[in-house]
Amino acid sequence: VKKNPIITLTTDFGLRDQYAGAMKGAMLSVNPAALPVDISHSITAGDIFEGAFVMAGACGYYPPGTVHVGVVDPGVGGPRRAVVIETENFFFVGPDNGLMSLAAERDGIRRIVEIKNEEFMRPDVSRTFHGRDIFGPVAAHLSLGVGVCELGPQTTDLDFIRIPEPECGDDEITGEVIHVDTYGNLITNIEGALIEERLGHGEVEVRLKDAVVRGLHVSYASLEPGRVGALTGSSGYVEVAAREASAAALLGAELGDKVRVRRR
Amino acid sequence: VKKNPIITLTTDFGLRDQYAGAMKGAMLSVNPAALPVDISHSITAGDIFEGAFVMAGACGYYPPGTVHVGVVDPGVGGPRRAVVIETENFFFVGPDNGLMSLAAERDGIRRIVEIKNEEFMRPDVSRTFHGRDIFGPVAAHLSLGVGVCELGPQTTDLDFIRIPEPECGDDEITGEVIHVDTYGNLITNIEGALIEERLGHGEVEVRLKDAVVRGLHVSYASLEPGRVGALTGSSGYVEVAAREASAAALLGAELGDKVRVRRR
Amino acid sequence: VKKNPIITLTTDFGLRDQYAGAMKGAMLSVNPAALPVDISHSITAGDIFEGAFVMAGACGYYPPGTVHVGVVDPGVGGPRRAVVIETENFFFVGPDNGLMSLAAERDGIRRIVEIKNEEFMRPDVSRTFHGRDIFGPVAAHLSLGVGVCELGPQTTDLDFIRIPEPECGDDEITGEVIHVDTYGNLITNIEGALIEERLGHGEVEVRLKDAVVRGLHVSYASLEPGRVGALTGSSGYVEVAAREASAAALLGAELGDKVRVRRR
Repeated sequence: VKKNPIITLTTDFGLRDQYAGAMKGAMLSVNPAALPVDISHSITAGDIFEGAFVMAGACGYYPPGTVHVGVVDPGVGGPRRAVVIETENFFFVGPDNGLMSLAAERDGIRRIVEIKNEEFMRPDVSRTFHGRDIFGPVAAHLSLGVGVCELGPQTTDLDFIRIPEPECGDDEITGEVIHVDTYGNLITNIEGALIEERLGHGEVEVRLKDAVVRGLHVSYASLEPGRVGALTGSSGYVEVAAREASAAALLGAELGDKVRVRRR
Repeated sequence: VKKNPIITLTTDFGLRDQYAGAMKGAMLSVNPAALPVDISHSITAGDIFEGAFVMAGACGYYPPGTVHVGVVDPGVGGPRRAVVIETENFFFVGPDNGLMSLAAERDGIRRIVEIKNEEFMRPDVSRTFHGRDIFGPVAAHLSLGVGVCELGPQTTDLDFIRIPEPECGDDEITGEVIHVDTYGNLITNIEGALIEERLGHGEVEVRLKDAVVRGLHVSYASLEPGRVGALTGSSGYVEVAAREASAAALLGAELGDKVRVRRR
Repeated sequence: VKKNPIITLTTDFGLRDQYAGAMKGAMLSVNPAALPVDISHSITAGDIFEGAFVMAGACGYYPPGTVHVGVVDPGVGGPRRAVVIETENFFFVGPDNGLMSLAAERDGIRRIVEIKNEEFMRPDVSRTFHGRDIFGPVAAHLSLGVGVCELGPQTTDLDFIRIPEPECGDDEITGEVIHVDTYGNLITNIEGALIEERLGHGEVEVRLKDAVVRGLHVSYASLEPGRVGALTGSSGYVEVAAREASAAALLGAELGDKVRVRRR
């Protein structure tokens, strides 16, 4: 992977406090030519799954060599390790708590290194803010061309977060809502491609809470106003959505709610 | 218009999800030297007028050659077209739903092109996320110097959004609140310059909900504490504001409320 | 201080409106090679102390030569002056209302200049938006290498905001909550180093609202689930926090609440 000055950030730091700004400063102090690109600082506090989902949906679109830093890190200062994951196209830098694993696995993991070399950290590393003191500086060093193996020993251990597999019956797939986005779209763990593969062609029926919707639409614009419908969204998962409205609000639906897809 | 690596983004994607990050990645994959600059990702979901107002208030301050991308796009995947508008100083890239028209018109429209050439899009364009698959990549190609006419056929059609004109009587101008900003300032569609032009010099009276305020102040700091007043804001429109407080909250006022200005 | 193209922004503009985007445009129009880096646009409207606290927690981590712009400016258009503060490593640009003073003082103030030279402002400076018309352009000129003394006359006056000093008794330190962060951590004005200095070694007891907690933890991860505890946070201040929960919500605590630390 060739060096590239783009460093993305996905954190739960929020947008009001000094945390994201301090971390970007610590990166730019190591490599003033780096381009910090915010993916999100609004991950729900401590929600590693949400952070992993967002990273998996965004990181893959960046050019080869991009360094992706993730900091949703409730275990900071405890025994959890700090790691760099080198994949086919990227470097991922952050805590070993699963946050980066989903995005990294999709790109193809090549090598994992535990960050140990203090030379690439800030002096006087705190035990409460590794984004500023370890992950940001290490990411910036990678963007300068520092080799992954200089950062610490290779390891094969890695905490994984995975999207729960839907259950596939003969004529029904049962999944769940794994993300509710800013529009109120209810994103499920059922990939659009799975439906055709398991249930064959032909119209399907999607059930979520009290709603029973027929067919998969091709776009939000083709949904009927005021009614929810289903479609395969931009990340490849089936979602229940409403046209210019929040499906989550219309259905009173939330994370973890069951979704059933069957052939009609 | 000479190429320039700055690409601004105005969207309703929100700040928590993967959408803004994925779009910035898709742009940087085309032009890794581009500088993505966030104008806003917090436009109210699907609110094209609000997006147009924000773009019109920000885009004009950028250097010539800047590419401005707007994505408030409830009609994505439907029949609405994708366009590039070349203006005196800028390129605007986004859906043909009026979002960019206000900013583009202010700068002087030179040429409109319908985006058709798939060479400048991501492969496998989705029908739900054209920001990532079409608008972002096209913007990045423009920032690399690709000619507007390579993107598709020229057109003269364009959806326009316009700020509603205030009604001008002999001794009164009647307008409305068109934007409530983060401070609770109530921005109207009455340009400060219009008052002098229509009502002549001399003190005016501004009425909004139960408030009757006298004169136009020159700054927020000259307002009386705890009371609303009127002034011409930084975009040139009369606004009803309060000193270190929200005029919207003090008056219970909202978008669309009538505003009357007359000479005393 | 050598020129450097990084310009940070800390404002209360919010993230929906045109204000931050317009200001970044005005900066890039002066120096298209500048890198605008958002520290925060979500400072509570008009809250100069909060802005000063955030700037003091973030600005110091940037490379030498960085220009830091702050705009929390309820007095815009009134008599408050516009200043540049040159410090050991940075330039600070903004209103003379204390906003930048905390960060500037920590870095070591070298010189203060009142911004008077209109050559470095936008033409037709408004009286409501100096971020766009004065501070942004001046910051960009500094990033191009313009000398501080070209901007206006030197001055020795400066409004200061300071973190209130805790009261130190013989066996007790009394402070207060000065910031509640996005996680609900209650950050106090008691520096961790002060405790050892004043109360000596040995276990301490921290009281805040109804909570009495023993000892200082080393990290959030070492707190007991569901209970608040105290630790020295990443800015050096003692904070009362909860593991994967909001201490502010658990205790019903807020800004200004008293905190007492004593030896057990």
